[in-house]
Amino acid sequence: MNETIDILKNHRSIRKFKDEKLDQETIRELVESAQSASTSSYVQAYTIIGVTDDEKKRALKEISTQSYVENNGHLFVFLADYNRHYELSKDKGTPISYDKTEQLIVGTVDATLAAQNLAVAAESMGLGMCYIGSLRNDMGKVVEILGLPKGVIPLFGMVVGKPDHEGSRKERLPFDVVYHENTYKSVDKVKDDIEEYDERISEYYKERSGGRRNDTWSDQVIGMLSKKQRLDVDAVIKGQGFLGQ
Amino acid sequence: MNETIDILKNHRSIRKFKDEKLDQETIRELVESAQSASTSSYVQAYTIIGVTDDEKKRALKEISTQSYVENNGHLFVFLADYNRHYELSKDKGTPISYDKTEQLIVGTVDATLAAQNLAVAAESMGLGMCYIGSLRNDMGKVVEILGLPKGVIPLFGMVVGKPDHEGSRKERLPFDVVYHENTYKSVDKVKDDIEEYDERISEYYKERSGGRRNDTWSDQVIGMLSKKQRLDVDAVIKGQGFLGQ
Repeated sequence: MNETIDILKNHRSIRKFKDEKLDQETIRELVESAQSASTSSYVQAYTIIGVTDDEKKRALKEISTQSYVENNGHLFVFLADYNRHYELSKDKGTPISYDKTEQLIVGTVDATLAAQNLAVAAESMGLGMCYIGSLRNDMGKVVEILGLPKGVIPLFGMVVGKPDHEGSRKERLPFDVVYHENTYKSVDKVKDDIEEYDERISEYYKERSGGRRNDTWSDQVIGMLSKKQRLDVDAVIKGQGFLGQ
Repeated sequence: MNETIDILKNHRSIRKFKDEKLDQETIRELVESAQSASTSSYVQAYTIIGVTDDEKKRALKEISTQSYVENNGHLFVFLADYNRHYELSKDKGTPISYDKTEQLIVGTVDATLAAQNLAVAAESMGLGMCYIGSLRNDMGKVVEILGLPKGVIPLFGMVVGKPDHEGSRKERLPFDVVYHENTYKSVDKVKDDIEEYDERISEYYKERSGGRRNDTWSDQVIGMLSKKQRLDVDAVIKGQGFLGQ
């Protein structure tokens, strides 16, 4: 295992940071690492907003409900972005469109490739990080707070900073459940693996909570997915000019 | 700059590989690195299929049109996947749904975070890689070839292997174009930056092609985005049970 793989495999989300802001040089190094990721046909269909304004951070924290959205070394928000291409194309007289599902996928993939490079770069510097998917609790409000024009949608945030706790690595699904060969392997072929995994996760939660929590992975994610969450995401995305068909 | 950031910043797509297959240990190390990435609320809504069957590789190459989909050290295909959760939830008597835009975003983000970790792990081992977005040229056919059930969509592939050419780093958009502070910065504020970038990219293409190609970044991506591409992606995704509303 080399040093980089060691960093990747040791990832843990950090949710409490020392009261120390990232400096400009560090921010630039992180963003340039992000930009070096692959991009679909060179389109670079994303933008990163760094949020330092206290009022905006507080407003974003209200949406997310997580205190670390306010208290961190730096808060990044990742946007799928075709506004840039659209404005440039208007100047050239051949306006492009981005209202098909394909463009939503490309923008989401491009922004996420960049984000994960930023995450890895941060961890390689000894910084901690955590994704903030909960900005999608009110995507329309995030559009407002950051002043996002048509063609731009906020996908998620990321907090980065000096860790103020250790965090803990959460075991992932077994290799054989997630990795298939040549043909999709139906879940009944890996049920035993998932059951054993569920038992280990249940043990992990029990241990960490002093016995108060003992749900399994299946319980947890099925519980989460059975709630009707974030039903307004579709309308906001369409309002920004995506998914027009 | 540390070793990991050096790897991130030196990324280049590799499209020609030595005739040498990845061994099982390497594949496992890559997939475990992928799995260590963050995942939205622990949902792990993705699956990775390794394609080694010659006939399937040929069929996928037909879709992509790129020879390196057939000739590589290993071909991975990344899927957004809720089939696993759905099947498990049926057993528990509370079937979940994944037909809202939120779940398409979560599945796409989860698969992409994993994929980018795999890319970084591969490059840290001295391997080369390239994403294969062109599998979406015929997403329905990929569903068929890999036998994907409802709840699963193929997003993109990735080829990995021992590089048989150097590749070249393609300059990204200027930092100030991609990174904004607190509020979205409209494109008219960075037009000069983009123009200068366009000139540099035009020079790069001219040099690499011996003068035969001299389009700019703007020309290239606007040309690409103005074509009505992959209009069937929406229908395939809906056919797999996503975007139901």
